[in-house]
Amino acid sequence: MTDRLSLVFSALADPTRRDIVARLTEGDATVGELAEPYDVTMQAVSKHLKVLGDAGLVSRGREAQRRPVHLEAEVLDLMTVWLERYRRRAEERYQRLDAVLAAMQDTDTESERAESERGAAS
Amino acid sequence: MTDRLSLVFSALADPTRRDIVARLTEGDATVGELAEPYDVTMQAVSKHLKVLGDAGLVSRGREAQRRPVHLEAEVLDLMTVWLERYRRRAEERYQRLDAVLAAMQDTDTESERAESERGAAS
Repeated sequence: MTDRLSLVFSALADPTRRDIVARLTEGDATVGELAEPYDVTMQAVSKHLKVLGDAGLVSRGREAQRRPVHLEAEVLDLMTVWLERYRRRAEERYQRLDAVLAAMQDTDTESERAESERGAAS
Repeated sequence: MTDRLSLVFSALADPTRRDIVARLTEGDATVGELAEPYDVTMQAVSKHLKVLGDAGLVSRGREAQRRPVHLEAEVLDLMTVWLERYRRRAEERYQRLDAVLAAMQDTDTESERAESERGAAS
């Protein structure tokens, strides 16, 4: 379970961590700033940041005092690529099923018509 | 950690479970069919299916013998909606940054030109 995509999915399987990612889309922030809206300690936020960092979703700046947290948004693309591939496949499958059903219905209608024409002729 | 989105992210944080989802985009399958390509027991696959089922990602058919596994593809949309919102936000932020940088560069170029014009005039 150490592949990158598993780490990313796992990191986002927590509402606080998803909130932190959402907050960081608006701009870099310090740990203190990130902790503010939550009823949790800075230590708890640091733990969440470690999980996000291990998945490559965030990085820390080098400014000695602030060390702002930065979102590595392109990592979200990994997931989007995965999701899109399979969503598209599932959709195509439904479209094929729809086509088959429509074709079956056409055949039904045609044989019904043929039958009623036969009925009219007899 | 019982919110739906966390369950879905968590369920997909495993390569075998992502494989099973990928396989199911091609069509419903029995547990035996799903176990085939893997070097695991049917019991292990059943466990994975339980995790996927708890997240709402798959359901089981009612046909007594086969009980085929069906992908609930619309659950993937939950994730896509979440991802797209924040990807777009992150992208907009980069575009704003680019615009600011471009404007700064324009100002630089302009003041350079003004300076060189002053230089030429003097």
